[in-house]
Formats: sequence, C-alpha cells, structure tokens
Amino acid sequence: REPAATTGDADTFKILIATDNHIGYMEKDPIRGNDSFNSFEEILQLAQAHSVDFILLGGDLFHDNKPSRKCMHSTLTLLRQYCLGDRPCPVEFLSDQKENFANKFGTVNYEDPNYNVGMPVFSIHGNHDDPSGDGSLCALDLLSAAGLVNYFGKQVEVDDISIKPILLQKGSSKLALYGLGNVRDERLNRTFQKKKVKMFRPSEDADNWFNMLVIHQNRIAHGPTNYIPEAYLDDFLNLILWGHEHECLVDPVHNSVQDFHITQPGSSVATSLCEGESVPKHIAILKITGMDFQIQPIRLRTVRPFVMDEVILQAIEGLRPGDQNMVNDFLQDRVTEMIQLAMDEWKELNPDVAEANWPKPLVRLKVEYSGGFTTFNPQRFGQAFVNRVANPKDILQFYRRRTQTVSKSKSKP
Amino acid sequence: REPAATTGDADTFKILIATDNHIGYMEKDPIRGNDSFNSFEEILQLAQAHSVDFILLGGDLFHDNKPSRKCMHSTLTLLRQYCLGDRPCPVEFLSDQKENFANKFGTVNYEDPNYNVGMPVFSIHGNHDDPSGDGSLCALDLLSAAGLVNYFGKQVEVDDISIKPILLQKGSSKLALYGLGNVRDERLNRTFQKKKVKMFRPSEDADNWFNMLVIHQNRIAHGPTNYIPEAYLDDFLNLILWGHEHECLVDPVHNSVQDFHITQPGSSVATSLCEGESVPKHIAILKITGMDFQIQPIRLRTVRPFVMDEVILQAIEGLRPGDQNMVNDFLQDRVTEMIQLAMDEWKELNPDVAEANWPKPLVRLKVEYSGGFTTFNPQRFGQAFVNRVANPKDILQFYRRRTQTVSKSKSKP
Ligand SMILES: [Mn+2]
Ligand SMILES: [Mn+2]
Ligand SMILES: [Mn+2]
Ligand SMILES: [Mn+2]
Repeated sequence: REPAATTGDADTFKILIATDNHIGYMEKDPIRGNDSFNSFEEILQLAQAHSVDFILLGGDLFHDNKPSRKCMHSTLTLLRQYCLGDRPCPVEFLSDQKENFANKFGTVNYEDPNYNVGMPVFSIHGNHDDPSGDGSLCALDLLSAAGLVNYFGKQVEVDDISIKPILLQKGSSKLALYGLGNVRDERLNRTFQKKKVKMFRPSEDADNWFNMLVIHQNRIAHGPTNYIPEAYLDDFLNLILWGHEHECLVDPVHNSVQDFHITQPGSSVATSLCEGESVPKHIAILKITGMDFQIQPIRLRTVRPFVMDEVILQAIEGLRPGDQNMVNDFLQDRVTEMIQLAMDEWKELNPDVAEANWPKPLVRLKVEYSGGFTTFNPQRFGQAFVNRVANPKDILQFYRRRTQTVSKSKSKP
Repeated sequence: REPAATTGDADTFKILIATDNHIGYMEKDPIRGNDSFNSFEEILQLAQAHSVDFILLGGDLFHDNKPSRKCMHSTLTLLRQYCLGDRPCPVEFLSDQKENFANKFGTVNYEDPNYNVGMPVFSIHGNHDDPSGDGSLCALDLLSAAGLVNYFGKQVEVDDISIKPILLQKGSSKLALYGLGNVRDERLNRTFQKKKVKMFRPSEDADNWFNMLVIHQNRIAHGPTNYIPEAYLDDFLNLILWGHEHECLVDPVHNSVQDFHITQPGSSVATSLCEGESVPKHIAILKITGMDFQIQPIRLRTVRPFVMDEVILQAIEGLRPGDQNMVNDFLQDRVTEMIQLAMDEWKELNPDVAEANWPKPLVRLKVEYSGGFTTFNPQRFGQAFVNRVANPKDILQFYRRRTQTVSKSKSKP
C-alpha cells in the first residue's frame, strides 16, 4: 500500500496509545453503565481525528474475562464503525505475521484482502481479559477472529518466554514492537529471574530499530516478587508502554540505569475510588521518527469527573465529637464543595455541553474519625446527594489512622 | 455488482438451505465434541463447491443461547474462512436494508464496502439462539456485528408482528424472503389467531415475486396450540423453509389447501437419539427461476452414523425371561449387527476415508421388556462397546408398551 500523505510525516509513526479501557465496567449501573463505552468511543474518535497510523492498547480492554453479550456486541460494533474504512494504513509489515498473531488467518488485519481496515488496533491482553478455559482463548481472540483487532503478545509457555517482535517500517523509520500479555506477577518475576524471558532482535541492522515493549504487570512493588522491576527489562529497549497501573503517568519517565523511557497511560475509566484513579485521564499520541520519540498527552473529555479529598475530623477547629448533626453538616458542606469543584473543572473541559447532559461526578471523601468521633451509615449520608453524584452510596470512607501502617494492596487494576 | 456467469443461470437463484446446525452441541464430549462443527464446516464447503448465491439458515445455528467462547471463536473463524472472498454475489438487493436488518450498520454484508463477502449467509434465530437479556440480543447479533451473517426475522413485538420481506432479484427472477424468528409456539399461535401476523407484499408487480418464508416453530402438534398449523400461513406464499423440526423432510411437500410447498431440511447434528434424528441428514440446493423452484437434496457425509432399532423381547422365540445372560448375549449380538449396518452404510458414503478415521456410530436400541423380562444397567451393558460406539452409556432404552399411550413430547429440538 502507498503511504498516505495525510497521515503525517512519511518517516514518522503516529500511534495512539491507551490502556485499561475496562469495557463493560459497571455496565448494569443505571448512572455509570455507559462510562467505559463512552471513553472507548472517544479514544476511537481521537484516533480518527488525529489520523494515527494505528492504535496500540496495553491490555484490560475488557473488564470481565467473559464480557456480556451486550458488551461484546457494543465493542464489535464500535471497532467496526471506527476501524474499518478506506484509509490505507501507511505502515509496512515486515515480520512473519504467522509468528506474531496466533489466529488461524495469521495476518495483520489491514493486509487481509477481505477487510478494509482504515485504523488497525494492536493489543495485548491484561489480567482481566487473559486467555483461559477450553482452547486457552480470551475475548481478544474473538475480536481477532472477527478481523477487528490484531492481538499479539500471547504466551504459550509462561515459564520460558520468547518474544518475537512485530517489525514495522514507515519511510526510513523502523519499529520493533514487543508484546508480553499479562502473566501472574510472581510467576513472570520468577521467569525473569531465571533469565527465561528472551526477546529476539531483528537479524539485520539491529541498532537502527526503535524497540518498544508493551507490558501489563504490576509496576509498583506489592511484596518482594509481586511486580516486575524495571531493571528486569532488556536495556536495548527504547520505550515501554506499561499497562495495568491505572494512574495516568503518560509523560515518559526516564530510567537512567536501563536508559529507556516508560509511559503509563493509565485506565480510561476509574475502576476504584482511589488516589491513582483521580488523576486526570489521558491517552497520548506517540510519534516515532528514527530513534526519537515524542508523546503528546490528550485529556479524555468523556471521563466522569472524579474528586477525592480527605478530612481529619479532630483537626477541624470547633467540631465537637458528640454533635452528630454538626459533623454531618460539616461533611455535607465539604461534599458540596467537592461537587462544585469537580463540575467547574469538567465544564471548563466541555464548554459546549448543555446542562441537561452534564454528568454526575464521582466523589470520595476519606474521613479520619479518631479522637472520639463516630462513624455513621454512608448510604444514609449519600441520600442527600442522589441526584448530584454518581456514587451516592459510597461517598464517605471512614478510617482511623494507625501509628504504623503497612499498606498491602490486594486490588487488581 | 455484475452477475457472475460461474454461479449458474443468470436468472436462477441458487441457494443452499440448511437449518438447526446446533453448533456447540456436546462440545465437551471427547468423542462427539466436534460433530456439530464438522457438519457446519461441510455445509460451508458444499456452498462453495456448488457456487451458490447465498446460504439460508432456518434457526438454531447455535445449540446454546450463550455459546462458549470456543464455540463462538470457531464459528467466527469458519464463517470468515468460507464466507469472505472475492467472488461477487450476483444477487441484487432491492428492499430497505435498514428495515430488514436490525444492526447498527443496516446493510447486507455483501454490499458493505469494508467487507469482501463471497458467500453471504442469511439466518433467522431459533428457540436455542433467541434474543434475550440486556438489549435483547442473541448470538446471531454478534455474528451480524462482525459482518459475517445477515440476521433477519427479529421481531420487536411478538403480539403484533409485521414482516417486511427481503427483496432480491437475479436476472428476471424476483425473490421476496420473509423471516420469522422463533417465538414461543403458544404465543405465536395466539398472535396468528388474532390475525396479528401481517406479511407485507412488494408494492409493485406483487404477483411476479416468488414468496418464501423461513420459520422456526413446531410443525407437529404438541397439544392444541403448541404448534403453528400450516393453514395459518398466508396462501400467497410459494415455499416455506421450516426449521426447528430435526427430522430431515427436505423434499418439498405440497399443501394443497394453501397451495404452497414446505421443505424441512432437518438438523445437521442429532441432538437426541430418536427416530426423527436417525433419518439421513441432508441439506439442499434450492433453485428458483421465476415462479418455479427445484430442490436438490445433498446428503451430509460428516454426520456421525446413527442407527436405531427396536426389539420386543417377548416376541423373540426361545428367549427366556429368567436367563439374564441369554438376554444380554442376544442384545449384544443385536447391537453388534447394528454397528455393522451403520458402518457399512457410512463406508459406502465415504469410500476414501482411512479406517483410522472412521467414526464411532451412534446406536440406540429400544427394548420392550414386558412379559417377565427385567431391565438392567444400560451403562454396564455399554462397557463392551466403549471402543465401538459413540454413546456407550445409553445404547439401550428399556420401555414397556402401554395399552393407551399419549405421547406429549416436551423436548425442544
Ligand atoms: Mn490489569
Ligand atoms: Mn486494568
Ligand atoms: Mn429449535
Ligand atoms: Mn433445533
């Protein structure tokens, strides 16, 4: 296919990077049910608007290992709507497609003569949508069989891993794309320690490839072996797209020991009401020219506003532990301010949306109640906010600060 | 698109008709697990070999309302493999595609510019794969979203049904294709009785259309309203493709009151060991030229051989009710003969298959044991046949003839 001038510099890969879309998250919730779909659609629209060469996803495309029929139907429909079309993909595919893709057809979808793919999607699997059961298939295998996603990074033998990169060329730029779908952290950690993760290099001209790895693992240590230390990753790599961690840290961080950069786009929907998820959600346009790259973050506008705050009751002057009404009024005022803050910011991002279509924000207020204060029912507290927040039942989270706290998160993003 | 000379007479529709493929039936059975997939693949191969214009299915494509991931993956893969391709479909589509197809794209797949469809599939749903749950979707909606099946005959309001036909033209022949996906029999019966099933006629030249209906209901009376009497169907129809009934009665039967014909292809996999399912399985090539049609049945070769017989123990001369061993030996001999019979017939159909690949047959012997005979454990009896039949555990079915028998089947084909 001919490179198309409209997709940007003829020697520059232009890639939309995103991860952890968790499509189907809370899909039955009357308020938040469409959030994951809306943001995934926004991402597809951004890819079109920016005329990227392809979309690269870092896993957890689906929230459930077995997405509901409605979820699968919506996803197939969105991908068909946005990814098929006449626009030629200006990227030459150089590696053996049968080795890169596990499906029966063994082709990248944009070179399949039976499909018109205008915007290819490449994805690895995460821990939420990993292969399982009869035939060791995952939801991405269905999208792959339907010709709508190029699913790569599937490992056959997790104790002895060989990764052959997808080799792509655009003009004079060459991109070697390594994919490693999620493996249980302890197990992959061990495989790394045993030096059993091998990444193949292109046989010719190895130094002139931009080497990028897509991975979906814990980046933050949860216990000694329950994550993948950055130092484990080969230092010939230039850039890591790190999935699984939901906090948006999309601006590339340099690892000076390994001399590579890491970009962590974070999830496109908050799947828990914690600090990390309250960081504004972005995807990014990644441009690669020769051995150089640039990342341009783009804030997602469809994401439901989420504000988080914390209050230590005994530090509030004049607040009397015995006076429930007073504490309640105080917290109601605080939540009201948070709603205002969330909506002000949202309106700035979305100046054209009519008030009837403003979303209800997610609000989480952590309440430290030591010093004689008592907890009360958060659901009852939330009744006053039923029409103003998306999560009236769990706005408040009571806790007591302990002298020594060892936080050992068991949540799986 | 230009009509292709290779697909046959330029004025003749050439359609493969089949139904009740029940893909996924017993998919976990170590012996029979692939049967439904094999026969569905054979049907796709026959469609290719006969260069039909399209495939028309009568419902129950899937056995389970929620097919397993493996089942869905295999089906997507088979359809992509056989139905996509460069061969142009020589059939003009004249009706409003948005009205015929419920999906977002509202097009017949072979006219979607993003897909190369060489062999379109049209299907209604059956009772096994009917719409349900959130969004009222069915497994065919997924295939439709993936561009691989043209799903029609979905009813929004089952108490007031309007069917607008798919209008097709090939040369001078015109085909109006009416689809009515399965509705619970009692309910549809009532809707018919209330004259609330309306079939729209083409506004122009109504008498020159060949009118065909695809329906998936009980044809045999199971109780007064638990089926659809043929007389309920409009007499302007020329041909009915009747799904749901698993017995192959594909040769068209004329209803002289209504003056239409009915073809009942029957299932492509036996889902119960009863008489109807032991009739040799066929699909057919339907040719329609002007107001004439022809049906050419084709026997399926992949279908596991199935023989059924019946023995009345007290009618067997010399058989002594008290002599268990004698009865056992007698039945073993009888089953051995049945296996022989099944395999002889199968080999005649498949002369080129090496012995290592011969299938184990399904064998069902009904044993009438009145007159002092006793039943015994069919599973133990079957142990002698473990390596020779596909259903060792239920070869024998004991029963006693009653003077008055009212059979009221509750099974759902
Ligand atoms: Mn994850
Ligand atoms: Mn995640
Ligand atoms: Mn049925
Ligand atoms: Mn059936």
